[in-house]
Amino acid sequence: MKIAIAQINPTIGDLPGNAQKILEIAQKAAAEGARLLLTPELSLCGYPPRDLLLNPSFLQAMDIGLQQLARNLPPALAVLVGTVEENLTAHNTGGKSLFNSIALLERGKVKQVFHKRLLPTYDVFDEHRYFEAGSEANYFTLDNVHVGVTICEDLWNDEEFWGKRSYTTNPIADLSILGVDFIVNLSASPYSVGKQKFREAMLKSSAVRFQQLIIYTNQVGGNDDLIFDGRSFALNRQGEIVCRVCGFEQDLVVVEFDEEQRDFRSGSIAPEYESEDEEIWHALVLGLRDYVRKCGFSKVVLGLSGGIDSSLVAAIATAALGKENVLGVLMPSPYSSEHSISDALALAENLGIKTHILQIGELMQGYDKTLAELFAGTEFGLAEENIQSRIRGNLLMAISNKFGHLLLSTGNKSEMAVGYCTLYGDMNGGLAVIADVPKTRVYSICRWLNRNDEVIPQNVLTKAPSAELKPGQVDKIRYHLTTF
Amino acid sequence: MKIAIAQINPTIGDLPGNAQKILEIAQKAAAEGARLLLTPELSLCGYPPRDLLLNPSFLQAMDIGLQQLARNLPPALAVLVGTVEENLTAHNTGGKSLFNSIALLERGKVKQVFHKRLLPTYDVFDEHRYFEAGSEANYFTLDNVHVGVTICEDLWNDEEFWGKRSYTTNPIADLSILGVDFIVNLSASPYSVGKQKFREAMLKSSAVRFQQLIIYTNQVGGNDDLIFDGRSFALNRQGEIVCRVCGFEQDLVVVEFDEEQRDFRSGSIAPEYESEDEEIWHALVLGLRDYVRKCGFSKVVLGLSGGIDSSLVAAIATAALGKENVLGVLMPSPYSSEHSISDALALAENLGIKTHILQIGELMQGYDKTLAELFAGTEFGLAEENIQSRIRGNLLMAISNKFGHLLLSTGNKSEMAVGYCTLYGDMNGGLAVIADVPKTRVYSICRWLNRNDEVIPQNVLTKAPSAELKPGQVDKIRYHLTTF
Repeated sequence: MKIAIAQINPTIGDLPGNAQKILEIAQKAAAEGARLLLTPELSLCGYPPRDLLLNPSFLQAMDIGLQQLARNLPPALAVLVGTVEENLTAHNTGGKSLFNSIALLERGKVKQVFHKRLLPTYDVFDEHRYFEAGSEANYFTLDNVHVGVTICEDLWNDEEFWGKRSYTTNPIADLSILGVDFIVNLSASPYSVGKQKFREAMLKSSAVRFQQLIIYTNQVGGNDDLIFDGRSFALNRQGEIVCRVCGFEQDLVVVEFDEEQRDFRSGSIAPEYESEDEEIWHALVLGLRDYVRKCGFSKVVLGLSGGIDSSLVAAIATAALGKENVLGVLMPSPYSSEHSISDALALAENLGIKTHILQIGELMQGYDKTLAELFAGTEFGLAEENIQSRIRGNLLMAISNKFGHLLLSTGNKSEMAVGYCTLYGDMNGGLAVIADVPKTRVYSICRWLNRNDEVIPQNVLTKAPSAELKPGQVDKIRYHLTTF
Repeated sequence: MKIAIAQINPTIGDLPGNAQKILEIAQKAAAEGARLLLTPELSLCGYPPRDLLLNPSFLQAMDIGLQQLARNLPPALAVLVGTVEENLTAHNTGGKSLFNSIALLERGKVKQVFHKRLLPTYDVFDEHRYFEAGSEANYFTLDNVHVGVTICEDLWNDEEFWGKRSYTTNPIADLSILGVDFIVNLSASPYSVGKQKFREAMLKSSAVRFQQLIIYTNQVGGNDDLIFDGRSFALNRQGEIVCRVCGFEQDLVVVEFDEEQRDFRSGSIAPEYESEDEEIWHALVLGLRDYVRKCGFSKVVLGLSGGIDSSLVAAIATAALGKENVLGVLMPSPYSSEHSISDALALAENLGIKTHILQIGELMQGYDKTLAELFAGTEFGLAEENIQSRIRGNLLMAISNKFGHLLLSTGNKSEMAVGYCTLYGDMNGGLAVIADVPKTRVYSICRWLNRNDEVIPQNVLTKAPSAELKPGQVDKIRYHLTTF
C-alpha cells in the first residue's frame, strides 16, 4: 500500500484555497498510485486558526468545504484532512464546543472523524481555548490495513522519553494494544532551531518502545509569527528513518507499506542541513515570503543603515521575493559615518536592489526648532536620539503608504530583549524579520551567506556596530550580547 | 460571627506591597471585631499574574511571602488569601504544575489550602495555561461555623441559570450537599458594562436554588488592559442583597452571620450607579489612574485636537491624576480649523490643565521636501495625511521621553474597529484610554459630565467630527457609528 505524505502550505482561513491545494496534491498522489493521502493537522483551515474558530459562519463554511472536497477527490484515494467537528454534547456535559479533528474522506464521503486527545496549552499553543479533548483511541481499516491516527501533541507525551507526564493518557500506548499496522501523526509543529533532531529522537524512542511504524506529516509555511518547517518523515520499528521530506517547502512523498512484511520499504530521505545557520536562513526566507504573500503584498521597503541587521534583512527579502521587489532606503543624518552610506550601497549592489537616499538633517532641525521653547534648558539626550529614529520610521511608512510596499523592521533579538530600539522608530514595520535571531547568530548567518561569494560587504561584518544617533556612539550592548 | 470583606486593589507581582495591603486591612478588620477576613482571588500576587507564574523564583517568593503574612496577621483573625500551590503529582499524573488556590491563614500558620475547580480559558482568561483544576469540594470549620469556599469561576456554571453547562461539575451543588452554613466566593471578575447586574442575578439564582448564603468578594483596580470594579456583595437564601461594597474603590465592609438564625444580618448596601455613563466614567478614571501609577509614572501628556475624544481623555486624566499632572499639547496644521484651537483651549481652561502649542506646518513641508523626488507625480493622499498624524505622534513621544510623562492615546473603539486611525501616529501612547468606548458612548459620557457645569465645551459636543488631515475633511464614519 502506497501512502502519500502531502506536506502542504495552507493559508490560515483561506478555505477554498486550501481545499484546492489538497485536491491538486491528491490528484498527483492518485497518479502515483497512492491509496492513502496524509495532510497536516487542520489542513483545511491552516494552523493555527485561533479566533476564526469563534465565528459560526467560518465553521459552517469549513463544514461545507469538507463535504465538497470529499466529493471532488479521486475515488480510489482515501484522504485524511484536518478540520474541526462540533462537540454536540458540550451544552449538557460541559466542555468546549469543538474538537480538533481529522476526517477520513473516501469515495465521496466523510467516512470517519477522529478527535485530538492531547491539547497543548502552553508557549505558542492555546488549544484549550477552543477544543475539547477526544477520549478514544483513533484508528481505521483500509483494505485490511489497520491505521492508527494521532494528531500532533498526541505523540508528545511519552513519559519514558520525557521523564514525566504532561497528560494523563498516552495515545500511542492505546494504539499499540489495539495492534494497528502503523500510526500516522498529522501535525502542525512550529520550527525552532534543532527541533527536527528532537522530533526524530522522540518518535524514534516511541517507535522502538511500542514497536510501531510511524508516519509523521508536518505542515510547512509561515503563518504570522510562526514558521512551520515540514520535514515530515517515517520510522520503522527499529526507529530508523525510512523516508524524510525536504524542509521549508511543499512536497509530496510516497511511503510504501509492504503488506507481506508488515513494514515500510525504504524511500527517499532528504538530507539534513549542513549547519544551523543554513537551516535558520531557510526558515527566515520562508517566513518572510509567506508573511508578505499571505498578507497580500508583493513588494517590501526597508531602511539600510550599512549595519549588519538591515543588511541581513535585505538579503533575506531578496532571496524571498526577488531583487525587483525590494527597495532599500538610506537615511543619513549629520551623525552618520561615511561608511554607513558606502556599505549600504555596496550591499545593494551585491543584491541588485534599488535604493533611495533621503537626508534627514533638515527634518532633525525642524523638530529641534518646533520643540525649542518646550525643551529650553534641557540637554541633548534620548528624546533627541529617538526623534532621528522616528523621522526615519515616518519616512519609511510614508513610502509604504504611498506605494503599497510592506515595511520590514530590522531589529535583532538581542536588541529587542534589552530594549535597545525606538518605539515608533526603527520598530516600525509589518514584519520584524530577525526579531527572534540573536546578534551573534546574525553574524554567523552572514558569514555563512558569504561562504562562496560576498553577499554582505566585508566591512559590515568587521566594523563595530553603532546606532549612530549621536556623535561617536558605539553599541556597548554588543559586549554583553556576545554571550547570548 | 463577623466576616469582613477586604475589597483590595493589588498590584500584579508586587508581593511585598500586596502582603502589606492585606496586613493593614486585616488589622482594621480585627479592630472591628471580625473573625474571618476575605480577600480576592490571587490577592497576594494580583490577578492576572500571567507568565510571572512561569518564573520559579516568583513562586518561591510568593510562598515565603505567604508564610510571613501568616505570622504577622492578628492572631484572632482567620484570613483567606489568594495564592498558588504547586501540583506535586503533576509529573506522575500529567497536568499543569500549579493550582489557583486560597490559603486559610490562622494563628500564624497556613491551616488549609483550597484549589479552584473551574478554570476559565476564554475571552480575557487563560487559566488552563497555568493551572490544574481542583477535584474536591472546598470547605472549613471555624468556631463551629461551616464555610464553603469557591474561587471566582467556581460559581459561574449553574446550568439552570445559563441553560447549559460550561464544565462537568458545579461546586455549589457539592457544597450544598455537605451542608455548609455559608459560601464565600473569592473573585477577580473584570468589569464590563452591566456586569454587576448580571453577577447579582446569577448568584441570586444560585442562592435560591441551593438555599445557600453567599458572600462574593471581588478585586478592585486597573491591571493593564483589565479593570476590576469590586462591588462585592452578600446574599441571603431568598437571594436578597444584604450587603454591597462600593464600586471602583478599595474598601473594608463587615457582614454579620447570626449563629442562632443561621442567616446574615442586614448590613450596608452601596447604591447602584444612576446611569451606565456614570459607571463607565468611574471605570475609566480608575483604569487610567492605576495604569499610570502601577507603571511608575505620575504625569501624562496628550494631544488636544479640540475634538470630543481627546477632550474626554483629558477630563478622565484630570479626574484620575489631578490637573497639575496633565499636559495638553495643541499641534495645529494649515488644515486645522480655527475652533480646533479655541475649543481645546476652552477645555484646558475648564479642566485647569497646562497646554503648549506646537505648529506642525514647517515639519509637514520638511517631509514634503524630503520625499519630493521619490513622490514626484503622485497625488496628495493617505500617505500625506498619515505624515501629519505621525509628526504629532513624534512630537508627543519626544515630550514623553524628555519629561517622563506617559503619553495617552485618544482613539475611540469605533475608530479602532474600522481602522480610522494612523499607526505610529495618533495610535502612539502607553495607554489607549477610551479604545474600548464606542463613539456614541463618548458623546453620552461627555453629556453626563456636563450635567451640572460645562466640562466639555459645548462646541465640542455639537460640531461635526473631523480628523482635519486635508482641507474640508469630515469623519464620514460618524454616520455609520451611530448604529454601534
